[in-house]
Amino acid sequence: MEPTTKMFTDRDVAVLEDIIRHRRDVRGNRFMPKPVEQSLIDRLLGAALFAPSVGFSQPWVFVIIRDATVRQQVKESFDLTNAATQPSFSGRQEQYARLKLEGILESPVNIAVFYRPPDGPVLGQTAMPEAGLFTVVCAIQNMWLMARALNLGLGWVSILDAQKVGNILRAPAGHQLVAYLCIGYTDGFLARPELELLGWEKRRVLESVIRYECF
Amino acid sequence: MEPTTKMFTDRDVAVLEDIIRHRRDVRGNRFMPKPVEQSLIDRLLGAALFAPSVGFSQPWVFVIIRDATVRQQVKESFDLTNAATQPSFSGRQEQYARLKLEGILESPVNIAVFYRPPDGPVLGQTAMPEAGLFTVVCAIQNMWLMARALNLGLGWVSILDAQKVGNILRAPAGHQLVAYLCIGYTDGFLARPELELLGWEKRRVLESVIRYECF
Repeated sequence: MEPTTKMFTDRDVAVLEDIIRHRRDVRGNRFMPKPVEQSLIDRLLGAALFAPSVGFSQPWVFVIIRDATVRQQVKESFDLTNAATQPSFSGRQEQYARLKLEGILESPVNIAVFYRPPDGPVLGQTAMPEAGLFTVVCAIQNMWLMARALNLGLGWVSILDAQKVGNILRAPAGHQLVAYLCIGYTDGFLARPELELLGWEKRRVLESVIRYECF
Repeated sequence: MEPTTKMFTDRDVAVLEDIIRHRRDVRGNRFMPKPVEQSLIDRLLGAALFAPSVGFSQPWVFVIIRDATVRQQVKESFDLTNAATQPSFSGRQEQYARLKLEGILESPVNIAVFYRPPDGPVLGQTAMPEAGLFTVVCAIQNMWLMARALNLGLGWVSILDAQKVGNILRAPAGHQLVAYLCIGYTDGFLARPELELLGWEKRRVLESVIRYECF
């Protein structure tokens, strides 16, 4: 097994860094209704398939949703879940209510990403069962960066009841919803994350999140 | 809040696609002992900090480990966990035993990545508590791609008892080990994943992992 000698350049590093820094979570207030070509969706999925996967298990399933009825059902489920969660944010409920937290109907394509449970033991997953779910998240992050490079907006909706959305999409038993993604053209990407711009949370500096040798 | 107009080009997309396709999980059989400059580790961490995070919570902590004694302790813990898991792979135990599954000592730098639990409710995490862990995985995938662009090898070790490794690193209560990464220069990157080359698992084609509208 001879290794390849492909070497990336400083310029390549700069491109990746630029894509990483300009990636945003795009919501319904920025999506445009313009349809997204299937060829672009295929490039997102192509990026997903080359994600690392524990034991090369590739335990991902992508449900591509354009149908307005299906998206409407998911949106109704989001509304119920969101209404139930809002009281958790006591003292900030007004600010919370003003936030646009999804783009299920405003974006022309949604992709529900599921974890498919394995048939038997998976190499690397026996001691950390959640490694299978983590694999699916790696694929999603690849898609997110590819979407930004293609100048497409992508938003991850996590205010959802995974079981209920699984039922809407008729997911087989054991399949677990990892992410519900909204994808579409956008009128632009914010210079900084919206929650940072609105003062919901501050950006942490590097020094506050690194330790050396141990805690 | 005016959006930015930064547009990426077809060439940028090709660079990202190339990095994604050439990324590999690098293990002890390919690492070289040459030290890794702190400036490169800082670029990996810089990529991590610009990952998406649920509710902009940034719940990540990175423990950078160069000390040989600490790495030796983690390696001993890996050996115990790996020996316990091997019998799960009945019929493939010999092949399993021949696989090199970590590079804890061969790589000069390890980074243990932890999830730090929040002080209160996090926007977007109330309905899916695992969204916090998923955020940390997004940061790890950013680091992995950046490592490949910098021509550095990175391997994710998941055959570990998260609690025991947390104890070795004196992690505070509630902090959860998400990934243990081995980082170093490598003699090259394999053309395809090692587990694919060795016939452990086959690559799945796109058609087998997509559904339209629902399952």
